[in-house]
Amino acid sequence: MRDQFRAYCQEKLMPRIVEANRNEVFDREIMKEIGQLGVLGCTIKGYDCAGVSSVSYGLLTREVERVDSSYRSAVSVQSSLVMGAIYQWGTEEQKQRYIPQLAVGEIIGCFGLTEPNHGSDIGTMETNAKYDEASKTYTLNGAKTWITNSPISDIFIVWARCDDKKVRGFIVNKKEHGKGLEAPKITGKFSLRASQTGMILLDNVKVPEDHLLPKVSGMRGPFSCLNNARYGIAWGAMGAAEACLGYARAYTLDRKQFGRPLANTQLMQKKMADMATEIALGLTACLQVGRLKDKDLHTPEMISMLKRNNAGKALAIAREARDMLGGNGIHDEYHIIRHAMNLEAVNTYEGTHDVHALILGRAITGLNAF
Amino acid sequence: MRDQFRAYCQEKLMPRIVEANRNEVFDREIMKEIGQLGVLGCTIKGYDCAGVSSVSYGLLTREVERVDSSYRSAVSVQSSLVMGAIYQWGTEEQKQRYIPQLAVGEIIGCFGLTEPNHGSDIGTMETNAKYDEASKTYTLNGAKTWITNSPISDIFIVWARCDDKKVRGFIVNKKEHGKGLEAPKITGKFSLRASQTGMILLDNVKVPEDHLLPKVSGMRGPFSCLNNARYGIAWGAMGAAEACLGYARAYTLDRKQFGRPLANTQLMQKKMADMATEIALGLTACLQVGRLKDKDLHTPEMISMLKRNNAGKALAIAREARDMLGGNGIHDEYHIIRHAMNLEAVNTYEGTHDVHALILGRAITGLNAF
Amino acid sequence: MRDQFRAYCQEKLMPRIVEANRNEVFDREIMKEIGQLGVLGCTIKGYDCAGVSSVSYGLLTREVERVDSSYRSAVSVQSSLVMGAIYQWGTEEQKQRYIPQLAVGEIIGCFGLTEPNHGSDIGTMETNAKYDEASKTYTLNGAKTWITNSPISDIFIVWARCDDKKVRGFIVNKKEHGKGLEAPKITGKFSLRASQTGMILLDNVKVPEDHLLPKVSGMRGPFSCLNNARYGIAWGAMGAAEACLGYARAYTLDRKQFGRPLANTQLMQKKMADMATEIALGLTACLQVGRLKDKDLHTPEMISMLKRNNAGKALAIAREARDMLGGNGIHDEYHIIRHAMNLEAVNTYEGTHDVHALILGRAITGLNAF
Amino acid sequence: MRDQFRAYCQEKLMPRIVEANRNEVFDREIMKEIGQLGVLGCTIKGYDCAGVSSVSYGLLTREVERVDSSYRSAVSVQSSLVMGAIYQWGTEEQKQRYIPQLAVGEIIGCFGLTEPNHGSDIGTMETNAKYDEASKTYTLNGAKTWITNSPISDIFIVWARCDDKKVRGFIVNKKEHGKGLEAPKITGKFSLRASQTGMILLDNVKVPEDHLLPKVSGMRGPFSCLNNARYGIAWGAMGAAEACLGYARAYTLDRKQFGRPLANTQLMQKKMADMATEIALGLTACLQVGRLKDKDLHTPEMISMLKRNNAGKALAIAREARDMLGGNGIHDEYHIIRHAMNLEAVNTYEGTHDVHALILGRAITGLNAF
Repeated sequence: MRDQFRAYCQEKLMPRIVEANRNEVFDREIMKEIGQLGVLGCTIKGYDCAGVSSVSYGLLTREVERVDSSYRSAVSVQSSLVMGAIYQWGTEEQKQRYIPQLAVGEIIGCFGLTEPNHGSDIGTMETNAKYDEASKTYTLNGAKTWITNSPISDIFIVWARCDDKKVRGFIVNKKEHGKGLEAPKITGKFSLRASQTGMILLDNVKVPEDHLLPKVSGMRGPFSCLNNARYGIAWGAMGAAEACLGYARAYTLDRKQFGRPLANTQLMQKKMADMATEIALGLTACLQVGRLKDKDLHTPEMISMLKRNNAGKALAIAREARDMLGGNGIHDEYHIIRHAMNLEAVNTYEGTHDVHALILGRAITGLNAF
Repeated sequence: MRDQFRAYCQEKLMPRIVEANRNEVFDREIMKEIGQLGVLGCTIKGYDCAGVSSVSYGLLTREVERVDSSYRSAVSVQSSLVMGAIYQWGTEEQKQRYIPQLAVGEIIGCFGLTEPNHGSDIGTMETNAKYDEASKTYTLNGAKTWITNSPISDIFIVWARCDDKKVRGFIVNKKEHGKGLEAPKITGKFSLRASQTGMILLDNVKVPEDHLLPKVSGMRGPFSCLNNARYGIAWGAMGAAEACLGYARAYTLDRKQFGRPLANTQLMQKKMADMATEIALGLTACLQVGRLKDKDLHTPEMISMLKRNNAGKALAIAREARDMLGGNGIHDEYHIIRHAMNLEAVNTYEGTHDVHALILGRAITGLNAF
Repeated sequence: MRDQFRAYCQEKLMPRIVEANRNEVFDREIMKEIGQLGVLGCTIKGYDCAGVSSVSYGLLTREVERVDSSYRSAVSVQSSLVMGAIYQWGTEEQKQRYIPQLAVGEIIGCFGLTEPNHGSDIGTMETNAKYDEASKTYTLNGAKTWITNSPISDIFIVWARCDDKKVRGFIVNKKEHGKGLEAPKITGKFSLRASQTGMILLDNVKVPEDHLLPKVSGMRGPFSCLNNARYGIAWGAMGAAEACLGYARAYTLDRKQFGRPLANTQLMQKKMADMATEIALGLTACLQVGRLKDKDLHTPEMISMLKRNNAGKALAIAREARDMLGGNGIHDEYHIIRHAMNLEAVNTYEGTHDVHALILGRAITGLNAF
Repeated sequence: MRDQFRAYCQEKLMPRIVEANRNEVFDREIMKEIGQLGVLGCTIKGYDCAGVSSVSYGLLTREVERVDSSYRSAVSVQSSLVMGAIYQWGTEEQKQRYIPQLAVGEIIGCFGLTEPNHGSDIGTMETNAKYDEASKTYTLNGAKTWITNSPISDIFIVWARCDDKKVRGFIVNKKEHGKGLEAPKITGKFSLRASQTGMILLDNVKVPEDHLLPKVSGMRGPFSCLNNARYGIAWGAMGAAEACLGYARAYTLDRKQFGRPLANTQLMQKKMADMATEIALGLTACLQVGRLKDKDLHTPEMISMLKRNNAGKALAIAREARDMLGGNGIHDEYHIIRHAMNLEAVNTYEGTHDVHALILGRAITGLNAF
């Protein structure tokens, strides 16, 4: 499965990425292609999903991010955040209606959690959902931002504060509940340019009560989805890092300066030794946590540590690799600068490096320093 | 003079930069505007130039790079590399003909040194100039790459290997000697997007002997120009770094998370303390070297050290500042990611961080480790 | 003056330091020798002191710390903290009685500020001074720790909280007020082993009111002395760093591995380039702040920045230099490990690296994050 | 077995270490105690050894280095270098004679490889062994330095260049072949002070041919032993790092500054999060390589990477932890500075950080940059 997906990524995605990144476009068709390979929501059992292990899922995200973090982001959102939310917290009906379509990329979903004034501090969410007894609908108001896929989504998992002050999730189906819903695209990003990022503006959007995710309330709902997504990010970031090391190695082997390949110099070799070491550590840790996850022995702190480390180290590797290419390293046809820009977002979203430090610090000391 | 130029940069350049960077455009008009303020070639005495001190020049490059490294690059090339080369190594006639026009931005010049296969290792230059006794012309063949301003240049300072194997400089005037000369633009850069970068392709370009720069032969010619440019870069990079610190400070003072401004947290304050320290050190060093330069007491190693340190530290500061903005930090309207991308090139061109390390290492040890 | 003192340091102090460090001994005689050279309290005007500039003082501390931070510490304490406190805040009588003796090293002083439970957080000082109207004496009780020179001191500047809750300084003269005063030596230090560090235990120590420093109350008293000491530390730390670079350079030039001197390798040259750069920056900053200090244009924040940067960078340089010596680097006869251990204390005392970060962060943001 | 050994280390070794380190002493008795617990040479099958897995051995080295790297060094030398060399390359007779005595600590061995002029560059070894046909003895001449345990050793594994220029190993039994053999102690170390380090001086030392290790010639002999030792170091270094994190955590939880425990501050929590992450990564990698080693699927490069990473990261952790203790951190009763000093040697011996970088660089690029 890994090898088949790697072949797809290298043969079908790689040729499209430079232009997609340069022009800030995302081709919806890609979701269908990935869906057909069984990758979307692949850890889900049933509902036309593959039901593979967490380790397998990790290997697949690594392959797709080897091409571009944008594509991995699209896969993560669809799989862990949208399908995952419905699978974990939805009704049987919701699962049967939405998961199979999401699995083949027929419909695309997004996950509306982050708000303009609340990044890491999501506990103070302002988006709200008022229930109307008469119509048996919820009326949603508020704004979400930095939402991957929102401009092209068919369904929106929206987290909102209900009348009882508890946060709950809703499936907003654009076709059915789209009145008052807008999802404008954010342009001018210099990271994840090949993915569509947007806002979600909710102006009295009415959602019938059967589109509430009933099985969870409170921050545990979105957090458990994010945790799964972070696990995938940790694998994916290593794929991007491996790609950067690979490009830098090839370039410096080929490039001759002062009478020898750049790769034959101590300064270049030390950089590559450092990179290879961090990649080996990061992947070993992914494997270990993945195996624990398959046995349900993982903790949120393990995943905080893994996401934080791997995203941060991947970013550092991409920067170093870009530097190794000298002047050519700023050109998108050499790929590394694209990864370096992408990993800025990867290191930031779903918990910044510092926020995860404080999560870990709290676990280590028992004291809150947020 | 500093204050007047700062006002111009903030009021006239800042409003144009986001779009210019987004769309990879450089407005030729900017060179005229800057020229009218007396900034281009401002350290030159005579030829309608201002004749200010090196410290003054540094203060001006800092102001323009506070907006964008692309604009500072254009100024550096025009001032230190083109006007500087003619001023230092040209005939009186060449100076009188070209410097005044360059000073007001009527014509734009570029500096053709780097070749596709030779970045730092410029001693192995392949571009050559064959002299023809009969026509009293030199015939230039070869290719140069990563040349700032080349697609919009009127004159090209081209360094080429002559029949005696020595490298000499030529003024190639596009209008007069343009046959066989091409300067295609390089697109797909993700650094210095607001400056025009291109190649110079020379296919039997004929240049009359009065357009040879006669007063220098060997690598000393281009290197002395580069040295002056590097000095300006060192000041400029600090301007970019100061801008990034300023944006990050303002953002974190404004952004509230977990009940207090982000700027009120230890992690943010430590980052800002580190940034402010490196900026203070970098500027103090610029001032010291500038004063020595004005007394002609500087050495190339001082400038290697200064350029290496300031470009490298500015890049680190920009990256840290970008991180401080979280998700918003990847958006170009928050400016920092643009500086961070620009500084990748700044840290690389005119001697990479590692190449300057080896220049310094050689000075310290007396041993060559290139 | 610099050259004369350098000669003394290299010829008279260097030969004694390995044994002194190995055995944790400090030879009182050294203070007399340094005193005779006019170094102690050399910025003081009058009272048999040299009255030199702050820059000159800095150059001298750099020379002595080139040998060992312990000796510089002893000089700093005597000059900035003891003589400085009396000079700034003492009566004319106190000055005339004590400064000349301190200047020649006839008597040794120490500065009792830090308490066992209060390192950086000195505002919560517990040592107290109760005034007795009848005897016109103050009775001091409390404990101070990590006090350089305390075990060999003749006079003790002790800061204590008075009945009005304000902190004031006292000159405790061991011969005259020694009853109840103890100053046990702290052994087992692995930093500054060649200096004597101890506690000051005050058990109803009675000090006549003419030994109160009358011209200051509150934390401004000790802080202004510390500020002067920190300025000297910043210069001194660079002296230690220069020594380490010098040893590492000499060693790697001499040591041949794989057929060439270690100094001929890229990895070693890069380390030395980095070191030389930070030393040049640190010294340039010292010079700049020293000149401002001589014009009374400096601020406490400048000195925080300078001390923090130079101590931290010197420590990093010493560690890197130690590493360059491989296995031999752990031996005290190669000197570097001694400097590396010393600089741990230097980076910590008179404001840790983090505490100064927060001081700077507060200055930058206006917000307190301690 | 791990728990039993941990109890011994904490209860029997910990109480002795501060004095042992302060006074540079190693108590031979410790080897007997550790031997009685079955730890020495515990992976060897037969010859009264325990025959446990590589993972088990790693867990034990981690426990002993949690106390002090000196003790782990003594265990590593005895187990991997001495017993390992005899077990891998010795005759059945040699094994039966020496291994059981070494296993119980009755006799102590050392491993003579490094020479004064050849640290990492051991291929140019100068110590030689001349064979005398008549007496059937080898005559050894040369000098070895930085040899752990040499001053207290009963047997010396000495590597020497034979008449055919190939390097071979000899068991030099002090009692039997001690004429001409000296092993002076090196004093003045500020790292691994609780272990005995010395030289081995060989002046016409005669060793009978039955004390040659016959089963190997060339650098493969010592290198395979070193490889095993490095594997143990990688585990051990993590033990030291864990100890440092533990001390720093406890200290900062206990120490109140500015009205809250230091552990409640962001700066401290970030340091601890970083430490805990690197420890988790390092241990996970040890486990993975250990499992591969037990299946004989490991490569020398894996072990280079593991040793380099874990020693380097442990050193960084110890330094950071020391800093967290402020002034108290320089005192040996707080233990961390001892670990920090020890890890300087650990990061250096059996391949410096840089040498392993170049080993890895060569593996990555196929090019030699030594």
